[in-house]
Amino acid sequence: MKLRKNIPQVTLVGAGPGDLELITVKGLKRIQKADYILYDALVNPELLEEAPNAKKLYVGKRLGKKAYSQDEINQLIVEKALLYGHVVRLKGGDPFVFGRGFEELQYIESFQIPVEIVPGLSSSIAVPELARIPVTHRGVSNSFHVISGTLANGELNPEIHKSVTTNGTVVILMGVSKLKEIVRIYNDARKGNEAIAVIFNGSLPNETIVRGNISTILSKVEKQSTTGPALLVIGEVVRLDAISNDLVEQFKFYLN
Amino acid sequence: MKLRKNIPQVTLVGAGPGDLELITVKGLKRIQKADYILYDALVNPELLEEAPNAKKLYVGKRLGKKAYSQDEINQLIVEKALLYGHVVRLKGGDPFVFGRGFEELQYIESFQIPVEIVPGLSSSIAVPELARIPVTHRGVSNSFHVISGTLANGELNPEIHKSVTTNGTVVILMGVSKLKEIVRIYNDARKGNEAIAVIFNGSLPNETIVRGNISTILSKVEKQSTTGPALLVIGEVVRLDAISNDLVEQFKFYLN
Repeated sequence: MKLRKNIPQVTLVGAGPGDLELITVKGLKRIQKADYILYDALVNPELLEEAPNAKKLYVGKRLGKKAYSQDEINQLIVEKALLYGHVVRLKGGDPFVFGRGFEELQYIESFQIPVEIVPGLSSSIAVPELARIPVTHRGVSNSFHVISGTLANGELNPEIHKSVTTNGTVVILMGVSKLKEIVRIYNDARKGNEAIAVIFNGSLPNETIVRGNISTILSKVEKQSTTGPALLVIGEVVRLDAISNDLVEQFKFYLN
Repeated sequence: MKLRKNIPQVTLVGAGPGDLELITVKGLKRIQKADYILYDALVNPELLEEAPNAKKLYVGKRLGKKAYSQDEINQLIVEKALLYGHVVRLKGGDPFVFGRGFEELQYIESFQIPVEIVPGLSSSIAVPELARIPVTHRGVSNSFHVISGTLANGELNPEIHKSVTTNGTVVILMGVSKLKEIVRIYNDARKGNEAIAVIFNGSLPNETIVRGNISTILSKVEKQSTTGPALLVIGEVVRLDAISNDLVEQFKFYLN
């Protein structure tokens, strides 16, 4: 897509999990050429410095409350594209992973404004990865299931009941407030020994990882005061890091 | 991680789904500073031009056959790091999504060589996304399950039986050769009407998308001659693009 100033056009850009350099090359280029940027919480503010001349509007939550409804955000994107030209809609993670990006795409396209999509690293894979937990590992996990823990109405996502039967990895976003219910579901399925990690503020300097199993995780999480966005990883892959550390010990003689 | 020449160190870099600019900014920087690059098939060859002075070794398949076993690749990474310094291990997609990246990490770390991980866009999310199929969409899909269709021993991944019960999206990688068995599993679960898309050569210029439902997809795929890596997406999200196109038609009067 050729970007010309003042022709209405929108790029949906995923900013990735937080680290400034974990945006794609294409996403950064679009930011640098934006006339207007609408951005969310969870987007690294340094990214905005890449577009010193673009107008910017924060449309994320303020003090836990939405400043704009999704309908209002949709309308703002179209309005700004018609007024200013190239709008970059910058979202944390990936726009299509619980990001409501497709709703925005549909709305913008209904005005015949062209939309380009630039995917971002989804926290569901990248946050465990940066913590050295692979969502798949030969012989351990041949699938992974990514679930939004909390539905729009505030209730537990019933898909979690189905995820219990999988032998693969389960990643739950927006799930830490439902940890008690999730633990109960796994216990009812006799999976109290299943390994679990809770990663707070993934990929950021204040990242905190709490590891345990289903039986121990609640008390471990309660014992520490970390807040911020959190992600749950459930499955045997959570134990691999320890194996890796053991190997390092075991092979130390190679270099000593 | 500070990169100094000739100090053995390895960066595992995910190159993303194929488009040159869909690598991360960090991944590109590491390539540009590499002393040695070991790369796979499915990595855009233009990326290698970013490192004109680095030595390079292709360790992917040749004519469908592995040139190097995983053990040999592990050993080569360590050997090249000890000989040349900073090795970039460049893999298609994301290193931890069916990429055997964690096996490489464990092996390299066992020699006390530091490893940095730079995630890449996983095809499992980005390929449908670039084809305008969102893995999640409010009211339609609140979860997605990513499965390797074929196991290391060549057999169908039994997790596919479990995925049939999910109300979310199912993405199957390495599954097109198992399409007949997958269709049978969905039919047995009375899900013959479930929407499915087969995306060949996702994100590349020769991308081909075949859409249908479980009952029709086999004959549709057989009718066309496309080969190359393919990905299956199963679920109601596959039908959303049509809605989007309808909306464009519906709202045309806005701009005419």
